Amino acid sequence: MYNFTFHVPTTIHFGKGQISHLADLAGYGKKVLLCYGGGSIKRNGIYDQATKILSDAGLEIFELSGIEPNPRIQTVRHGVELCRKESIDMVLAIGDGSTIDCVKVVAAGAKYDGDAWDLVIHPELIKDALPIFSALTLAATGSEMDAFAVILDMTKNEKWDTAGECLKPTMSVLDPTYTFSVPARQTAAGMTDMMSHAFENYFSMDDGAYVQKRMAEALLKTMIHSGPIAPEKPDDYDARVNLMWSASHTINSLVGEGCAPVWSCTRWSMSSLPSMTSPTARALPILTPAWMEHVLSEKTEKQFAIYGRNVWGLTGTDDAPVTREAIARTRQFFTETMHMPATLHEVGITDEKHFDVMIQKAADGSKGSFVPLTKEDIVEIYRAAK
Amino acid sequence: MYNFTFHVPTTIHFGKGQISHLADLAGYGKKVLLCYGGGSIKRNGIYDQATKILSDAGLEIFELSGIEPNPRIQTVRHGVELCRKESIDMVLAIGDGSTIDCVKVVAAGAKYDGDAWDLVIHPELIKDALPIFSALTLAATGSEMDAFAVILDMTKNEKWDTAGECLKPTMSVLDPTYTFSVPARQTAAGMTDMMSHAFENYFSMDDGAYVQKRMAEALLKTMIHSGPIAPEKPDDYDARVNLMWSASHTINSLVGEGCAPVWSCTRWSMSSLPSMTSPTARALPILTPAWMEHVLSEKTEKQFAIYGRNVWGLTGTDDAPVTREAIARTRQFFTETMHMPATLHEVGITDEKHFDVMIQKAADGSKGSFVPLTKEDIVEIYRAAK
Repeated sequence: MYNFTFHVPTTIHFGKGQISHLADLAGYGKKVLLCYGGGSIKRNGIYDQATKILSDAGLEIFELSGIEPNPRIQTVRHGVELCRKESIDMVLAIGDGSTIDCVKVVAAGAKYDGDAWDLVIHPELIKDALPIFSALTLAATGSEMDAFAVILDMTKNEKWDTAGECLKPTMSVLDPTYTFSVPARQTAAGMTDMMSHAFENYFSMDDGAYVQKRMAEALLKTMIHSGPIAPEKPDDYDARVNLMWSASHTINSLVGEGCAPVWSCTRWSMSSLPSMTSPTARALPILTPAWMEHVLSEKTEKQFAIYGRNVWGLTGTDDAPVTREAIARTRQFFTETMHMPATLHEVGITDEKHFDVMIQKAADGSKGSFVPLTKEDIVEIYRAAK
Repeated sequence: MYNFTFHVPTTIHFGKGQISHLADLAGYGKKVLLCYGGGSIKRNGIYDQATKILSDAGLEIFELSGIEPNPRIQTVRHGVELCRKESIDMVLAIGDGSTIDCVKVVAAGAKYDGDAWDLVIHPELIKDALPIFSALTLAATGSEMDAFAVILDMTKNEKWDTAGECLKPTMSVLDPTYTFSVPARQTAAGMTDMMSHAFENYFSMDDGAYVQKRMAEALLKTMIHSGPIAPEKPDDYDARVNLMWSASHTINSLVGEGCAPVWSCTRWSMSSLPSMTSPTARALPILTPAWMEHVLSEKTEKQFAIYGRNVWGLTGTDDAPVTREAIARTRQFFTETMHMPATLHEVGITDEKHFDVMIQKAADGSKGSFVPLTKEDIVEIYRAAK
C-alpha cells in the first residue's frame, strides 16, 4: 500500500427530508448563489422547497441557472462575475454532478484574480474557494463528496478535469427520493459512471491494498444488485439509497487512496470526446470491457479472476475461464441488463478518423497504471470497441 | 436505510514516516500536551522522534505520562489540571486507543467547568474540546478516527463510554511500522476488538443498508486474511497496514451510519467487567459466538447465512448448515487461529455470582437491536460462555 492522506471533510446529510439542513448555510454568511441546470428542479418542487428554507433562514438568494449537462467555461465565468458583483458568501448547487462541478470552479474562480479557465488547465492555481454546498439529484459522478470538477470549452473543443482540496463541498444533502424522477436511461448512465470509478480504483497492480480492494468489490456488488432495480422501479427507495451512497464512495478517497491508480477509460472517454454528442458515461460501458480484454495477460489474469470470484461470485478454480466469464458478465451487465450502448458506432463515432483526434486529446496521464498503454494500444481498444 | 449524518473530519496521514506531519501542529498554537502510557514509546524511539519534530516546529511540550491500558478518571483529571495551569493549546496522544480515549476526555475537560467524570456519565455535556491529535501504535479500537472514549473509575468500579463530535481527532498519524513491536497476544486482542466493532454494525435487521453490509464484510474479510499473519510475522507490512486501516473504518461511521445498530457484546464486555483483570477485547471472542448462537432463530438465520457465504465463502444452498458452520468458524478463528480465550473461566470469571454484578452494570442501551435481549437472555449467554 502506498502512503496517503485521507481527508473527507464534507458533511453528508443522507436520507428523506434532509434538505432542511440547507438552513445550516446561514452559519456561513448572508448571500448565497443558488446554481442549477434546466427547469427540472422547478417542476419537481425542489426549487420551491430549497428557496423557502434558505429565505426562512435569513439568506439572500442570487441565481445562476442553465448550467449545461457538460458545464461550459462560459457559464463558470458568468457565475464568477456574479460572485464578484454581488459579494457572494457561498455557492449552492442543486442538481447532478455537472452542476456541482460548475459550482466548484465558480467558487474557486471567485477567489482567483485571473480567468477561471486557468484553474481548469492548472489545478495547482486553485488555492482558495468560497464554501461549496450541494443538494444532489442524480447518483453518478460523486462530485458531492470529492475534489474534482470537469469543465468544457467548446471554442477549444477541450474538456478537462481539475481538482483542489478546497473544492470538496462543505456539506451535501443526499436525498434519494430526489432521484425517483430520473429517467431509466439517465439512471443507467449514472450507474455506469460510478461503476467505472470503482473499476479505475480497483484495477491496480498494488496487491498490498487488500482492504481497499475488498471495499471496491463491496461497492461493485451493491451496484450490480441495485443498478437493475432502479430503472425498472424508479421509486424503490432501497435501490436509490444504495446507488446514491455507493456513488459517493467510489471517488471520495475510500477505495482510491493507498492504491495510487492512474485512471484510464474514464479519462479517455472524457477528454477524447468533448465534441461528441454523447456524455462520458455513454462511452464507458463500451470502452471498459474492450480495455479489460486488451490488458488481459498472464500478468493480470489473477486480478481479473479475483474480480470474477469476489464480485460475480464465480466459483471455478481455474483462472482462465473465470477471467473470460468475468469480462463477459461485465459487458453483458452494461449492454443487456442496463441497456447501455455496446459500440462506439452507437454513440456516433462511425469513422476511424475520429480516433486520431481522440488520441490527440488523451491526456498524458491517462494511459493507465494497471497496465501502461501506448497510443497504439488505445487505438486498438477504440478499434475493438467500434 | 435510516437517515444519517456522515461527518468524518479527521485527517489521516497513513504510512511509513508520516510522523513528520506532527510539525503541522504548529498551526494550532504553541503549547502541546504530549500524552502517553508506559515507557514503550521511549524504548522504540517514537518519543524521541516525535519530540524532535515538535520542538523543531517551535512547539513547547508538556507531558502527561503513565496513562493506563484502561484509562482512569484520575489520570484524566490530572491532564485537565495541566491544561488549565499551563494554558495548553492542544493535546497529542502517542499510543493505543486507551491513550487516545484518555486524551479526548482531557481535551473536553479543559473546556468544561465541572469535574471531568460528568462528561463520561453525561456525554451531552461535551460541547467543546481542545484540538486532539494522535499517533497510533496499536490497531484496535479505532479511537484515532472516531468520537468515542471509554473511561474507568476504579473507586466506583465503573467503566463507561462517552462520545462527542468535538472528540473526533483533528489529525491522526497511522504508521503501521509502529505496530511491528506489538506482541502477538496484544495484536490478536486488538484484532478481536476491531472485528467485534464490525460485527456490531453488521448484524442489524435493516436489510436496506446493502452497501454498508457489503463494506462491513470487506472489513471482516480483511481481518480474517491479515489477522493471522501479523502475530506470526510481526513485521509484515501488508498485514499491519490492512489491519490498521480496517480498524479505523469499523467504527468511524462508514459501516454503522444508516444501520442504527445498538451494540451488544462490546458494551456488555466493557461495562460489565471493569474490575476484572482482562481487558474488554479478551471477553469478546468468548461472548460473540455465544451471542450468535443465542440469537440464532428462524428470523435471523438468513442474516447469518449471508454472513457465512459472503465472509467465510461457504457455498451450500441450504441456510441452516451454512449458519452453523459460520458460527463455528467464527469461534474457531478466535480460539484456534488467533489463540484467544474460549471461556469466561479462562479470563477469571470462575463463578456465576459474578453474573449478577455484570448484569447490574450492563447499560440499558446495551441489549442489542438485531435481537432485543432481556437480562435473562444475557445471563444465558454468560452461562453458555462459561
